[in-house]
Amino acid sequence: MYLRDLGEEFVVESISRSLLSKPGHGEYLFYPEDARDLLPRAPRILISMDAYSISSLKLPWRDYSDIGWSSLSGAISDIIAKGGIPHACMIALGLPHTLKQEELEALIRGFREASEYYNVRVLGGDTNSASDGWIAISTIGFTTARTPPSRSGLRAGDYIIVSGIYGAMGYVAREGVEKSSSVNWVVKYTKRPLVRVEIGYVVESNYRYISASMDVSDGLSYTLYTLSRLSNCGILVENPPLVHSELYEYCKGDEKCLLEYSLHGGEEYGIVLGVKPEYKNHVQKDLEYYNIPYKVIGKAIAKQGLYFREKELPVYRYDQFKGWCILTSHHPRE
Amino acid sequence: MYLRDLGEEFVVESISRSLLSKPGHGEYLFYPEDARDLLPRAPRILISMDAYSISSLKLPWRDYSDIGWSSLSGAISDIIAKGGIPHACMIALGLPHTLKQEELEALIRGFREASEYYNVRVLGGDTNSASDGWIAISTIGFTTARTPPSRSGLRAGDYIIVSGIYGAMGYVAREGVEKSSSVNWVVKYTKRPLVRVEIGYVVESNYRYISASMDVSDGLSYTLYTLSRLSNCGILVENPPLVHSELYEYCKGDEKCLLEYSLHGGEEYGIVLGVKPEYKNHVQKDLEYYNIPYKVIGKAIAKQGLYFREKELPVYRYDQFKGWCILTSHHPRE
Repeated sequence: MYLRDLGEEFVVESISRSLLSKPGHGEYLFYPEDARDLLPRAPRILISMDAYSISSLKLPWRDYSDIGWSSLSGAISDIIAKGGIPHACMIALGLPHTLKQEELEALIRGFREASEYYNVRVLGGDTNSASDGWIAISTIGFTTARTPPSRSGLRAGDYIIVSGIYGAMGYVAREGVEKSSSVNWVVKYTKRPLVRVEIGYVVESNYRYISASMDVSDGLSYTLYTLSRLSNCGILVENPPLVHSELYEYCKGDEKCLLEYSLHGGEEYGIVLGVKPEYKNHVQKDLEYYNIPYKVIGKAIAKQGLYFREKELPVYRYDQFKGWCILTSHHPRE
Repeated sequence: MYLRDLGEEFVVESISRSLLSKPGHGEYLFYPEDARDLLPRAPRILISMDAYSISSLKLPWRDYSDIGWSSLSGAISDIIAKGGIPHACMIALGLPHTLKQEELEALIRGFREASEYYNVRVLGGDTNSASDGWIAISTIGFTTARTPPSRSGLRAGDYIIVSGIYGAMGYVAREGVEKSSSVNWVVKYTKRPLVRVEIGYVVESNYRYISASMDVSDGLSYTLYTLSRLSNCGILVENPPLVHSELYEYCKGDEKCLLEYSLHGGEEYGIVLGVKPEYKNHVQKDLEYYNIPYKVIGKAIAKQGLYFREKELPVYRYDQFKGWCILTSHHPRE
């Protein structure tokens, strides 16, 4: 059975039955209402929106449930980086009428599993037909931070702390999808990217000490580049970030190799934090309290650009309309 | 110049420069942050999401600016129907890399004009490439209503009040796009659908008297059908809603003709309200205060179904995956 046989009502009912969060205390509106009502959970609201073409998420080893999972993971990551706890989301779908019923069910299952894992409610959304499938997710979160950290507050001397474990998506980006398909560890770590919601707590409770924050959705080099460019300073990388042990073996411990694979990637959803030097221990202690893997990879410096010791680092960026680009890291504008 | 020549950075910069709302009092995050922060404007948050394929909005007489306008109008309508004042939105776009620069600029202009007209801030969004263009808009609003009206609260005896002026989209739906192209009044009234934000004030201040509320985004017959089905009652239509004078002339005043064209349509964004009989005057007085065109078209009745005097009315519905369907109005499920 395909969506064209099942019809919109069936699709929407399937989503609502297995995915939608019921009204909580003090809430009234529920499916099939077109809007939902919420009471604020903290003084400040954070909202974000992320969208994907399904084909861009469709690594050969990902099924539709992995696509649902991955898209929701990406959507909540922006809220966490700003010190928010993602509370709920709305999901709009563009689906081809040739999509099979089991593919639809897998997609919904992936959304549901991510929603339960991250404790993020799915409140509603919209369904459309599209020849080329797409997913748009809007997330609402709340934060107690009086000033959520921006991307532009980095100052020379701040420590650069990177959460997450790198190398698997870098392997895919550098070696290609076909070769990666047969590398077990790459498949394992990229099938369902994981976001650590607890980082939101660390950021909101340390917002005075965190000068800048951004997630690693488009690759670590691009995140470092963006933070340094917007903050008008540079970053000196002294250590590679944490990498999967399999990458370490593959690189035989060579730091240049480790850096190449960990800087280049995407959908990694670690967070890069700039931390004021006198408060580094505060932030580290909180990251450790939540068992969040992280590494202090270096420092912000006055000189523009990204450097690993003396050498300037290349910046990789995927442009939606142009494809992969390499940027020079000291350039004031792309 | 096409998007593939301009690149993602250019597209995103163009949107941010001419469209994005700056941080207000007490807000911090702004472009290019991936999330925005907001302080609540009323005790209860309302959120909704609407998405469209660009081709479905692309009537031959609509340019890209009209598409931007129309999509934003539709997105805020759901919030208004629930008694909310739309405050801000996020816009995700899937655009073909063959889109021309002037088409992009027109689209942005349409969003901006709607955003200014409705006083709804555009806070951010996401841009993707897509072979088949689409727009997803997530809206956040606030309401003072303790219980926003649902679609299921209609009770026999309630008055049915319909805001808005009908007939133009019904003409398109019944006569086809080609014939409609040469009918001036149809083109004029469907080029840029208008939403009345003030209805949000009327609903929030009369929420105790309004038993049910829903917007007319998918045609008046489908809205009446949905309200009656979810409320487990019927609706007896005694008068057609307000129609454009040109439709009145076209129909030579024949009520059956007026009803046919006004029930069948879409993107009309009037609101259908169920109003408790003893408070009808309260609600009418508030609608009149804001100069909102409306008509009391009938009453909710105990008997299931939609009726015009004795005759059962057909229900038209566009199914995203199946196309146009005709439903029987007394059927408990589609």
